[in-house]
Amino acid sequence: MPKVGIVMGSDSDLKVMSKAAKTLEKFGIDYEMTIISAHREPDVFFEWAKGAEDRGVKVIIAGAGMAAHLPGMCAALFPMPVVGVPLSGSKLDGMDAVFSIMQMPPGVPVATVAIDGGMNAAIMAAKILAVSDAELLEKLKAYTVEMKEAVQAKAARLDEVGYEAY
Amino acid sequence: MPKVGIVMGSDSDLKVMSKAAKTLEKFGIDYEMTIISAHREPDVFFEWAKGAEDRGVKVIIAGAGMAAHLPGMCAALFPMPVVGVPLSGSKLDGMDAVFSIMQMPPGVPVATVAIDGGMNAAIMAAKILAVSDAELLEKLKAYTVEMKEAVQAKAARLDEVGYEAY
Amino acid sequence: MPKVGIVMGSDSDLKVMSKAAKTLEKFGIDYEMTIISAHREPDVFFEWAKGAEDRGVKVIIAGAGMAAHLPGMCAALFPMPVVGVPLSGSKLDGMDAVFSIMQMPPGVPVATVAIDGGMNAAIMAAKILAVSDAELLEKLKAYTVEMKEAVQAKAARLDEVGYEAY
Amino acid sequence: MPKVGIVMGSDSDLKVMSKAAKTLEKFGIDYEMTIISAHREPDVFFEWAKGAEDRGVKVIIAGAGMAAHLPGMCAALFPMPVVGVPLSGSKLDGMDAVFSIMQMPPGVPVATVAIDGGMNAAIMAAKILAVSDAELLEKLKAYTVEMKEAVQAKAARLDEVGYEAY
Amino acid sequence: MPKVGIVMGSDSDLKVMSKAAKTLEKFGIDYEMTIISAHREPDVFFEWAKGAEDRGVKVIIAGAGMAAHLPGMCAALFPMPVVGVPLSGSKLDGMDAVFSIMQMPPGVPVATVAIDGGMNAAIMAAKILAVSDAELLEKLKAYTVEMKEAVQAKAARLDEVGYEAY
Amino acid sequence: MPKVGIVMGSDSDLKVMSKAAKTLEKFGIDYEMTIISAHREPDVFFEWAKGAEDRGVKVIIAGAGMAAHLPGMCAALFPMPVVGVPLSGSKLDGMDAVFSIMQMPPGVPVATVAIDGGMNAAIMAAKILAVSDAELLEKLKAYTVEMKEAVQAKAARLDEVGYEAY
Amino acid sequence: MPKVGIVMGSDSDLKVMSKAAKTLEKFGIDYEMTIISAHREPDVFFEWAKGAEDRGVKVIIAGAGMAAHLPGMCAALFPMPVVGVPLSGSKLDGMDAVFSIMQMPPGVPVATVAIDGGMNAAIMAAKILAVSDAELLEKLKAYTVEMKEAVQAKAARLDEVGYEAY
Amino acid sequence: MPKVGIVMGSDSDLKVMSKAAKTLEKFGIDYEMTIISAHREPDVFFEWAKGAEDRGVKVIIAGAGMAAHLPGMCAALFPMPVVGVPLSGSKLDGMDAVFSIMQMPPGVPVATVAIDGGMNAAIMAAKILAVSDAELLEKLKAYTVEMKEAVQAKAARLDEVGYEAY
Repeated sequence: MPKVGIVMGSDSDLKVMSKAAKTLEKFGIDYEMTIISAHREPDVFFEWAKGAEDRGVKVIIAGAGMAAHLPGMCAALFPMPVVGVPLSGSKLDGMDAVFSIMQMPPGVPVATVAIDGGMNAAIMAAKILAVSDAELLEKLKAYTVEMKEAVQAKAARLDEVGYEAY
Repeated sequence: MPKVGIVMGSDSDLKVMSKAAKTLEKFGIDYEMTIISAHREPDVFFEWAKGAEDRGVKVIIAGAGMAAHLPGMCAALFPMPVVGVPLSGSKLDGMDAVFSIMQMPPGVPVATVAIDGGMNAAIMAAKILAVSDAELLEKLKAYTVEMKEAVQAKAARLDEVGYEAY
Repeated sequence: MPKVGIVMGSDSDLKVMSKAAKTLEKFGIDYEMTIISAHREPDVFFEWAKGAEDRGVKVIIAGAGMAAHLPGMCAALFPMPVVGVPLSGSKLDGMDAVFSIMQMPPGVPVATVAIDGGMNAAIMAAKILAVSDAELLEKLKAYTVEMKEAVQAKAARLDEVGYEAY
Repeated sequence: MPKVGIVMGSDSDLKVMSKAAKTLEKFGIDYEMTIISAHREPDVFFEWAKGAEDRGVKVIIAGAGMAAHLPGMCAALFPMPVVGVPLSGSKLDGMDAVFSIMQMPPGVPVATVAIDGGMNAAIMAAKILAVSDAELLEKLKAYTVEMKEAVQAKAARLDEVGYEAY
Repeated sequence: MPKVGIVMGSDSDLKVMSKAAKTLEKFGIDYEMTIISAHREPDVFFEWAKGAEDRGVKVIIAGAGMAAHLPGMCAALFPMPVVGVPLSGSKLDGMDAVFSIMQMPPGVPVATVAIDGGMNAAIMAAKILAVSDAELLEKLKAYTVEMKEAVQAKAARLDEVGYEAY
Repeated sequence: MPKVGIVMGSDSDLKVMSKAAKTLEKFGIDYEMTIISAHREPDVFFEWAKGAEDRGVKVIIAGAGMAAHLPGMCAALFPMPVVGVPLSGSKLDGMDAVFSIMQMPPGVPVATVAIDGGMNAAIMAAKILAVSDAELLEKLKAYTVEMKEAVQAKAARLDEVGYEAY
Repeated sequence: MPKVGIVMGSDSDLKVMSKAAKTLEKFGIDYEMTIISAHREPDVFFEWAKGAEDRGVKVIIAGAGMAAHLPGMCAALFPMPVVGVPLSGSKLDGMDAVFSIMQMPPGVPVATVAIDGGMNAAIMAAKILAVSDAELLEKLKAYTVEMKEAVQAKAARLDEVGYEAY
Repeated sequence: MPKVGIVMGSDSDLKVMSKAAKTLEKFGIDYEMTIISAHREPDVFFEWAKGAEDRGVKVIIAGAGMAAHLPGMCAALFPMPVVGVPLSGSKLDGMDAVFSIMQMPPGVPVATVAIDGGMNAAIMAAKILAVSDAELLEKLKAYTVEMKEAVQAKAARLDEVGYEAY
């Protein structure tokens, strides 16, 4: 049963959103992923969003660009957290999507992450699930150590070879 | 039978949107006006938007602020023109609503007017209806003359009394 | 007789504006298309805009970049709807054109679509004409189904091959 | 034991952040609330953020304005979700805080809500907790109905009294 | 015979544009001032702009807000300099007018001054006329001395009374 | 004797500023052109700007990017018009230069043209000189005709070959 | 002998810049403060900036709004650090000043602080002087403790009285 | 003993930050340089920042992009000046970093330089150290002469070969 539903409005969003999928896989989290357009197939979208809870989904990750209504409409229909990823495809470098996703009215929030932040959306979904999953919480803590060591390795290399040879 | 449907997400939008209503009245255009939130009552919204055509509506005027999904979701469900009014209620002075309304993806346009442009939304609706309504077209032309005379009266007064007494 | 007049200020705008032409052709809508600069040939422009109604034009689609005055000046001279397309050619990625087209004063609206939204301008023109053209309205509804099926095909392919092979 | 930790950098943030507290109370969620400045007392802040998990906190709600580092530094130190509230106190109307909170680097996300969205931060926290709390999930669903009815009541009143008397 | 033509689109612009008039008076420069809307009375506008040269006008000062087409359309019709004043009346604090006035295409420049810079527009007009008017040039140099002395008087007062008593 | 002084802060600005030179040549206007940095050689700059009047200069065209102080400091030292060209070299696409050039305080205006508008700066200089130079005014009017014919030729070609072959 | 020179372009800047003065007094740092306009009295300004080193000044704090050239021109003339304070007086809320102060070209930096950050400019000046003044460094460390205790007192009060009584 | 500490959050920042290192070398200033992430290794960061004073560091240069907390958190922990370099790596071209670095709250300033201004950060550090280092001050004055001569050489070349051959 999928715990996370990844949804995007177009296959041009796959480049960013597949990072979310890969990150969930890394943490061993079951997910479903699909392409649905709230604008081009509102009925399909409604069914998908309303049925998510019954399919076992606990968190939706919705990525969209431009006038990005997908995350907010998910939040209107799904009772648990929706993580929104503003995508940068348009001439406005994602600021249109940021405003369309982040500025939700009182009562219907979306958890907005950075522009093109597909990976971070998955980390946020993992953190949400980790609230009630001690094993996943341990994985997240281990990941934190991993990140730390990766930076330390870079620092060590810089220290060793200097900035010109780096 | 209403020809124009005016819809807004909150009663705080009435100050701007009532200008649309008044302008339609001025041109003798039948309209319906209601408050529906795409986020807070998506089912009600879907019914309303899908039923608009059957109620006789030819143009929808949708006003919304912040992450303004109402106009775009109307455009997804209603086959004739949707005029979108970005409202300025938030800290971002309406730019969030502009991006959420104007930057619609290919295939699902919204006719966006100026920030807080309630009156202009009604003029645009009238222009749309005037394409097939010769009488209304005459009213719009008369309105153009009226606007011209109003500016000329101001110019005449400025000429007469000077800028200090104006 | 053309029902839609497409106008742009420069041949550098053709790349975007030809999408409007192609979309109108798809819906079988007669149109005229020309290049006129409101700034470089105001007299020519005035004649063109004032004569549009007599040539049968019901909707003008005007595309312009930078200090984009063409759509707004069309709206000043033509009594039916003007759809404005903000073009992104300048260093400001089209925001200069958005403000110049969308922020029209009371009484003289322009129906603004997305930056570089040539195709959406044509869809909006079709929606406007469909208010009084039942056959065109059916075409628009069929187009909606077409869009839906295109997204569904993408979703099916993603489901089948996965995001890595997509 | 508090399930949510509300933290803000200054008592001038209380006006917005107290909405978060009130909303948590409405849903019967235990919380702790304090004022800590990551900039003015980094040691105190570190202790607080690192100790949150042991105090039982499952979600942190962090509100900050200007160069808003509090939410992001919480995310660096706390393994479960951090909800960030960009506050609008400065001359930049909260856009400085939006960028400082939302644009977190890969691996360390903050769930950003709308500018001054204190109430929405609490709803998001409730949604997060509801993933593993069926009773709370029911409360959230009931709240959705409540919001719907509130809008419907406004629509009914508008229908009854008209926009002028509203 | 007026040497400068001051034009604005609405009497709401008088507050800023009257500063231009006062400054021209200070320098003893003849001017005409009127209210003309390029959008609401394009024919009147065309006549005015095309006739300006014959009326003796050497410089036009045009102030406009929002989608500010007045200065640019003057530049299209008048062969000598047009000074544009972006006005801040809208929700966008004048940035819409800045883009609409400053971003003119090659061949048709407008000399843009600061937002609400009515006085500076007049100084610029005076500088333009001073190119061929030695007496006016002397007045401008004297004005420079005047400005310098005004600042020095403030510095002296600050020095004398301190910042608390200032 | 040069009538126009072209100045820029760096040789990286030559690409845009040489358009100003070429345009002045086209109109037969004598000019001087140099590279001076107000920041890196303030003394040299002061001498240059203060001496411009004695060298015969009637208009200065100053191009600068980023924190563009060159045009404004010219305006502080030179009593006749300064035309400012905001250059787009930085990460901010010229908006930093626009604000640094356009937003001059009362008394010290700069005539700001479009971002990277080297050619338009020269046209503006020509318009300024044409106020007292009937021959140059005729050249500018002829140039207007030339621009008109260029657009008309494009329109004719589009009409002839269609948008696909264009 | 003054160690810090505070300079601003207008007496309207005193409200913010007097905070710099008060903060320097708090740390017992000698300063001079004056009003000089780089635009309205460039000669006076040049003398002042060039003479600062001889007057004993080690750090200049320069505040300016709009096209804020004062800090950058100080940096061109004074060999030690210049701290720039962007002031928010204009319609652009200080973003014009930010860009004019921060975006200095290579070789001539200004240390930019927050919009209207008069107090922070003085703290930065103190930190700069503390590099070679152990006593002042101790005062800064004590100030850090003071700030920490002030926040802790607020936290304690919130803890005691709750957010409603606060 | 290093006098300047250069720190950045990622090795992708090296391209800009190595300019700081090179510039310090040019002035003969000892420095240390490392990669530390305030978000990914907060403990390591705390130790580094708190220990900087004991290692002899007098100025920290911190570069960061996106939600750039590194400079501000350094300023919270280090008692002497922190120079912040906003990096442009993200879709927002560095404006996210500018707001995150510049808009620090009262009491905890960061000396912000231009976007990607690695070299200018080093010049600022040198200017800070030069307050108490007469030899370094002479080097900075010599550098000023060097910059002046470089511009003069360019001007001479332009004068000699003309803009087309340049």
